[in-house]
Amino acid sequence: MRKLIRNQSTKRGLPPGTPVFIGERRAEPPRITLIDYDEAEVLERRVDGVEACLPFRHTPTTTWINVDGLQDVEMVQALCEGFAVHPLVQEDILNTGQRPKCDEYDQYLYIVVKMLRWDRTRGEVDAEQVSLILGRNVVLSFQERPGDVFDPVRQRLRSGKGRVRKHGADYLAYCLLDAVVDGYFEVLEHIGDTIENIEDELVNHSSPATLRTIHRLKRESLMLHRNVWPLREVVQGLDRSDSALVAKATHPYLRDVLDHAVKVVDTVATFRDMLTGMLDIYLSSLSNRTNDVMKVLTIIATIFIPLTFIAGVYGMNFHHMPELQWRWAYPAVLALMAAIAAAMLVYFRRKRWI
Amino acid sequence: MRKLIRNQSTKRGLPPGTPVFIGERRAEPPRITLIDYDEAEVLERRVDGVEACLPFRHTPTTTWINVDGLQDVEMVQALCEGFAVHPLVQEDILNTGQRPKCDEYDQYLYIVVKMLRWDRTRGEVDAEQVSLILGRNVVLSFQERPGDVFDPVRQRLRSGKGRVRKHGADYLAYCLLDAVVDGYFEVLEHIGDTIENIEDELVNHSSPATLRTIHRLKRESLMLHRNVWPLREVVQGLDRSDSALVAKATHPYLRDVLDHAVKVVDTVATFRDMLTGMLDIYLSSLSNRTNDVMKVLTIIATIFIPLTFIAGVYGMNFHHMPELQWRWAYPAVLALMAAIAAAMLVYFRRKRWI
Amino acid sequence: MRKLIRNQSTKRGLPPGTPVFIGERRAEPPRITLIDYDEAEVLERRVDGVEACLPFRHTPTTTWINVDGLQDVEMVQALCEGFAVHPLVQEDILNTGQRPKCDEYDQYLYIVVKMLRWDRTRGEVDAEQVSLILGRNVVLSFQERPGDVFDPVRQRLRSGKGRVRKHGADYLAYCLLDAVVDGYFEVLEHIGDTIENIEDELVNHSSPATLRTIHRLKRESLMLHRNVWPLREVVQGLDRSDSALVAKATHPYLRDVLDHAVKVVDTVATFRDMLTGMLDIYLSSLSNRTNDVMKVLTIIATIFIPLTFIAGVYGMNFHHMPELQWRWAYPAVLALMAAIAAAMLVYFRRKRWI
Amino acid sequence: MRKLIRNQSTKRGLPPGTPVFIGERRAEPPRITLIDYDEAEVLERRVDGVEACLPFRHTPTTTWINVDGLQDVEMVQALCEGFAVHPLVQEDILNTGQRPKCDEYDQYLYIVVKMLRWDRTRGEVDAEQVSLILGRNVVLSFQERPGDVFDPVRQRLRSGKGRVRKHGADYLAYCLLDAVVDGYFEVLEHIGDTIENIEDELVNHSSPATLRTIHRLKRESLMLHRNVWPLREVVQGLDRSDSALVAKATHPYLRDVLDHAVKVVDTVATFRDMLTGMLDIYLSSLSNRTNDVMKVLTIIATIFIPLTFIAGVYGMNFHHMPELQWRWAYPAVLALMAAIAAAMLVYFRRKRWI
Amino acid sequence: MRKLIRNQSTKRGLPPGTPVFIGERRAEPPRITLIDYDEAEVLERRVDGVEACLPFRHTPTTTWINVDGLQDVEMVQALCEGFAVHPLVQEDILNTGQRPKCDEYDQYLYIVVKMLRWDRTRGEVDAEQVSLILGRNVVLSFQERPGDVFDPVRQRLRSGKGRVRKHGADYLAYCLLDAVVDGYFEVLEHIGDTIENIEDELVNHSSPATLRTIHRLKRESLMLHRNVWPLREVVQGLDRSDSALVAKATHPYLRDVLDHAVKVVDTVATFRDMLTGMLDIYLSSLSNRTNDVMKVLTIIATIFIPLTFIAGVYGMNFHHMPELQWRWAYPAVLALMAAIAAAMLVYFRRKRWI
Repeated sequence: MRKLIRNQSTKRGLPPGTPVFIGERRAEPPRITLIDYDEAEVLERRVDGVEACLPFRHTPTTTWINVDGLQDVEMVQALCEGFAVHPLVQEDILNTGQRPKCDEYDQYLYIVVKMLRWDRTRGEVDAEQVSLILGRNVVLSFQERPGDVFDPVRQRLRSGKGRVRKHGADYLAYCLLDAVVDGYFEVLEHIGDTIENIEDELVNHSSPATLRTIHRLKRESLMLHRNVWPLREVVQGLDRSDSALVAKATHPYLRDVLDHAVKVVDTVATFRDMLTGMLDIYLSSLSNRTNDVMKVLTIIATIFIPLTFIAGVYGMNFHHMPELQWRWAYPAVLALMAAIAAAMLVYFRRKRWI
Repeated sequence: MRKLIRNQSTKRGLPPGTPVFIGERRAEPPRITLIDYDEAEVLERRVDGVEACLPFRHTPTTTWINVDGLQDVEMVQALCEGFAVHPLVQEDILNTGQRPKCDEYDQYLYIVVKMLRWDRTRGEVDAEQVSLILGRNVVLSFQERPGDVFDPVRQRLRSGKGRVRKHGADYLAYCLLDAVVDGYFEVLEHIGDTIENIEDELVNHSSPATLRTIHRLKRESLMLHRNVWPLREVVQGLDRSDSALVAKATHPYLRDVLDHAVKVVDTVATFRDMLTGMLDIYLSSLSNRTNDVMKVLTIIATIFIPLTFIAGVYGMNFHHMPELQWRWAYPAVLALMAAIAAAMLVYFRRKRWI
Repeated sequence: MRKLIRNQSTKRGLPPGTPVFIGERRAEPPRITLIDYDEAEVLERRVDGVEACLPFRHTPTTTWINVDGLQDVEMVQALCEGFAVHPLVQEDILNTGQRPKCDEYDQYLYIVVKMLRWDRTRGEVDAEQVSLILGRNVVLSFQERPGDVFDPVRQRLRSGKGRVRKHGADYLAYCLLDAVVDGYFEVLEHIGDTIENIEDELVNHSSPATLRTIHRLKRESLMLHRNVWPLREVVQGLDRSDSALVAKATHPYLRDVLDHAVKVVDTVATFRDMLTGMLDIYLSSLSNRTNDVMKVLTIIATIFIPLTFIAGVYGMNFHHMPELQWRWAYPAVLALMAAIAAAMLVYFRRKRWI
Repeated sequence: MRKLIRNQSTKRGLPPGTPVFIGERRAEPPRITLIDYDEAEVLERRVDGVEACLPFRHTPTTTWINVDGLQDVEMVQALCEGFAVHPLVQEDILNTGQRPKCDEYDQYLYIVVKMLRWDRTRGEVDAEQVSLILGRNVVLSFQERPGDVFDPVRQRLRSGKGRVRKHGADYLAYCLLDAVVDGYFEVLEHIGDTIENIEDELVNHSSPATLRTIHRLKRESLMLHRNVWPLREVVQGLDRSDSALVAKATHPYLRDVLDHAVKVVDTVATFRDMLTGMLDIYLSSLSNRTNDVMKVLTIIATIFIPLTFIAGVYGMNFHHMPELQWRWAYPAVLALMAAIAAAMLVYFRRKRWI
Repeated sequence: MRKLIRNQSTKRGLPPGTPVFIGERRAEPPRITLIDYDEAEVLERRVDGVEACLPFRHTPTTTWINVDGLQDVEMVQALCEGFAVHPLVQEDILNTGQRPKCDEYDQYLYIVVKMLRWDRTRGEVDAEQVSLILGRNVVLSFQERPGDVFDPVRQRLRSGKGRVRKHGADYLAYCLLDAVVDGYFEVLEHIGDTIENIEDELVNHSSPATLRTIHRLKRESLMLHRNVWPLREVVQGLDRSDSALVAKATHPYLRDVLDHAVKVVDTVATFRDMLTGMLDIYLSSLSNRTNDVMKVLTIIATIFIPLTFIAGVYGMNFHHMPELQWRWAYPAVLALMAAIAAAMLVYFRRKRWI
């Protein structure tokens, strides 16, 4: 299970703007890939050092520099310095416990979002912080580890299909945001499917496992909510910003991402309402079951306890019990017992217990 | 039961603005109907291809083109291109999992709403996405399948009754929105009636089925809420918009639709409050019932267990039990037993258990 | 019990602005009364037709035309047409399921409120829609049935007491609104009294009837809330409106009504909080009672079951049971039984069960 | 217990602005005290009639006229007329069921607040409406009964300590508001102490009395909330008002009162959250207790019922029961019984029931 | 446990602006430390009296005067007077029950925050009020007791690392705020860890201690929320303020603190949601356990009560019971008993009780 909060103790006391990597350390070294394109051509390559990236800073072509793995703090710092990124932004890129946000600086926009994917092999949600720096003709993206939802964007860049090669860096940043939000729907679908399974289970045979699943889904919804709610503001901020970095033609696309983000928030709210309702049903099914158990006990006990008492009476050893000698006493007592049992059964039937 | 969320996986990775149909595929081919009218005349016909529609684009008469069925992506795309509709709008028309919204473009307004009807034959709510494009002198409407709530509007167009023939495309769009919102009241009436039935049931003889009905109603209210809440903003947006496409005379009508939408939202909120209250009553009726069962068991057990003990004592086989020889011991013990039972009954009566 | 939602199916499909009466049909014919007054004189009479009202349209005196009963659609329509009222307003006057609102038109203001009274004979809240049209020197009021809270206003008009004869139509409209809001306090007092009775009941001897009363009060609070919440906006709208129809001197009076409306909303919120708290107490009193029943059962069973077992042991028929021959065996066993019972009682006492 | 809502029925139907006293009638006659001061001198006296107050209306010194007791409607009215107070304000002064508010008139500000004190002798919160009229160089204050929280202010006026004698009427009004808000903290401290006692009780030995205390505290918090929440707006309104009656130097002091009011609102919110949490603990402690009772019953019954059955078998009177003759049958059966009991105990120990 | 509300009764009745210390009195005398620095040099010393501080008032270097311990009211007052601080601010510095806030005065800004640390030795949250006065080139800080989170800032001032020596008093104030907010994360991590432990406990073996821990965590979350929620406004106020005291270059840093504060608020909200969910699980685990206990009782009782009845029948002493003489009656009855027990077991198995 993911930790509720990333340990930030290592940072305590350091001067603000000190870049310290906070997150899972990974074995493999960080990887920088660079895609440089305009409408006519595309150049894609893996670079080894930060120096290879800097020449692209002032070319008229659009450049996308993607960094997978943040543990090499010096490298990240060098890259950021190369593109004149504020130290506070450098700190935020490395501290992977950020809340999604969009900060405007003079020469660039800094965007943090969470990339969520449903990891089928491990059966849990996989979360990763993605930082985007949108500058003039350049997009820098920083991820915690290799593997992301951006492959379709890369494919489109390579093939030249769609609009992406015709537009600039702002459209590329939009494509990346769009890919991130699309990933949320996969998680939503997983939660939605599980909720529907649980609804069937609740009606037929709920168990403590059902409750644990409801709890897990609530936790996942909470996590989704926490990451998507601020995303709305991020995209809204981008859309309303009058920064020259975002072209007017890109705004309808941003509004489209905003629609998707609002829909995710909406769906998460619906999920949470449904999960609350399901918890109520679960609790009432528990009460119902206790009731059923009680009824069985009460029926059996209420029928047999009086009968046992009668049998006990005629099992007493008093010398002077005239009934004991009577010829038909035994069958008469048996008949009496049967009558009592029948009366009880009629009573329970009337109370709708059986 | 409807899926909580429509599967969008098929779209993942495609460039934004790629029109892909997301929804239930249907056997019958899509159907385009065209109504062209001014105050004097009305022309209604079913057209086979998109080409037949395009000439109406620049006529001074008002034209309503309605498409039933969206699986023919090329046809929808061709129609939209013919009316210069933005690719993102084309994508939204085909992706039937949209949230109600109103987007302003330069030459037209794009409105998405959900059409809800109470389907008596299947006993559930029937939901369908309706996209409206309001251009100059033209309204395009896209539905997922044949059958809608617009027949009265068509009837009024044909007969020339009411104001619809005298006003332009904006009034027609209002009429369609109004018909959609009117359909919501039917669903509300169904939920309201069921709630009142359930209230009677709760008082008299609630059962787990009652709980399931409450849960189903909550789910339907949730769904209604999700579709109507944004509708308010849609109509408010239309009303406040200073687009030249909406005439000043149409605004009072839009405010009327807004009143209806607000009333639906209000009523849904009231329903949800009532359903929550009913759940509480259901749970307390369960507790009450457990209590009743417990009381029966306790009364029977508490009366007979001591009596059985007394009978057991005189059933012991000790040689030296002087009482056993006494002449009136048996009747005395019986009398003692009766006294104990009577005392217990008095005690229970005082505790108001019987 | 009132229906949760008025049936509007009869209206479905009609052109907007079609006046259709939605509400309870009543036997008695509608009644029009007219009061025309200025500071010097007052004229009050019952009129038979709409025509008798129209001449007052342009007189400098203030005219109040009150209509009781809306089933005569033509009459209402004729009156409205005579005062140039918009068809949508005519529709809203007749459709008695409106939400309270205030619409500004060029020549008049249209105000809808709900008149609530506590009907002592039937023991329930009596709700009625009141539509007010405030024009220049004229107020039209439409009610569903005879009998209202306006008699004190009429009395003041006749007697010339108070300010009402000195001010114009806007002050008259304020007086009517004030009378409506005053009526809410009566309903509030009824609910408040019942809540206080229930609080006593809860402490002493709650029953399922208590729960039903709580539920009924919640429903009434909900209804009150639904009608009063928008009222705030209505009065606020009137107060903030810069319509020439509302004189500056009337604004302090409107703010006074607003204060009252806010107080009603506040009190309803307090009531709902209290009712929620009372439900919690009711549920916990149920649990407490189950607990008490359980304790009685447990005490009795736990004392006597071991004793009965001992009696059973010495009731066995084995040939070789040496204790049975002992001289003091019987008293010894009885003493053992008493000791066990005493030990149990001490245990229960320590657990504070008895 | 205080009534939830003051009976306003006596007012129904009266013209707006009619001054009617609504509140508890008291035996003692109303009392007017007058303090007139400037930086140099202070004059304090009790006056008998309204006339004695009027000359102070236009003096340059600051005058504070305090009225204790409102049942003498004519006197209140005469005083108000003397200071040119609007009839609606007169009505509000006398109707003691007002919500805290601040109304700006041209020549004065009208402020209503609730004075709350913790009445140790009666063990409940004592609430009283205080109306302040802040005019040029004059403050009128109206209270329902003698006894208030203003004595420290009077003391400072007399002694000339603090700033109060150096500032004008607006500072005096601030001092009175400040004294009222200070009184709230006393009530808060009482509620806070009781909450902490209850928390201990809950852990150790909760009882239905605990629940009743929680309910009473909730009611008091609700009452506090209802009176303090609008107070924030009152003080905010005063602070933001650009009325010439409030000097610029007084604004920091008003912001200080606002801070206190916000803190009261905050603390009440915290109290309500804590009380809700305590109710949950109370309910779960009830469940825990039922569980404990059940366990005792189940342990005893489950051990002895099978043993009693075995004893019953060997108490049967069949002629052919070979075991009965066996030499060691009786000890063997006793050993079997002990073994069964031991096995049960091991089972319960493993289930952690004992 | 900390008191819910600090006792303010001692202050009641004093003139506003009277400085009175409200808080825990401590044995050690207050301590003033002074750090004076510019980019080139740093001077740090402990001063004994207020007089030693005043000369730094007008130097161009930045001066930080820190006071630990507030019980010496005269000293605090003298220091504040020396820096021309408003009496109301002096009062707030000494009254340690303030809500976090930021007040703008002409010559300085007054900021109150709560410093929270997780005290590992006492196992509880340690809260302390910190007041900051940001003037031109000077920061005054007032704390309740020695020991704080500012050591790293002091270290950086001494060593000249980071930006702190290059910037002015506003940057220093930011550094202090940043250190305070960093301290919150430590408390959050503690709560987060405890929540995760509790989640494991809930699944495996919850106990009333679990409930008490949940309650304690809720209380701590509430406390955190109360202190952090207004902090957002404090930092937002600082950021938006156009006071000349905050340099433009400091604003990005303030926004960074704001991000952290928002994240704390967010995390606290998530914690509260999770704790509510855990309470539900705890309650349902109680119900489950009652159910399990009931099932054991019911199974045992339901099997043995009928068997005991049969044994009782054949223990009756009637003379005429022919079965008693039959040769195979005893084995037959034993077989019947076994059959009944088996049937019961099958029934329970089918009901999934065993």
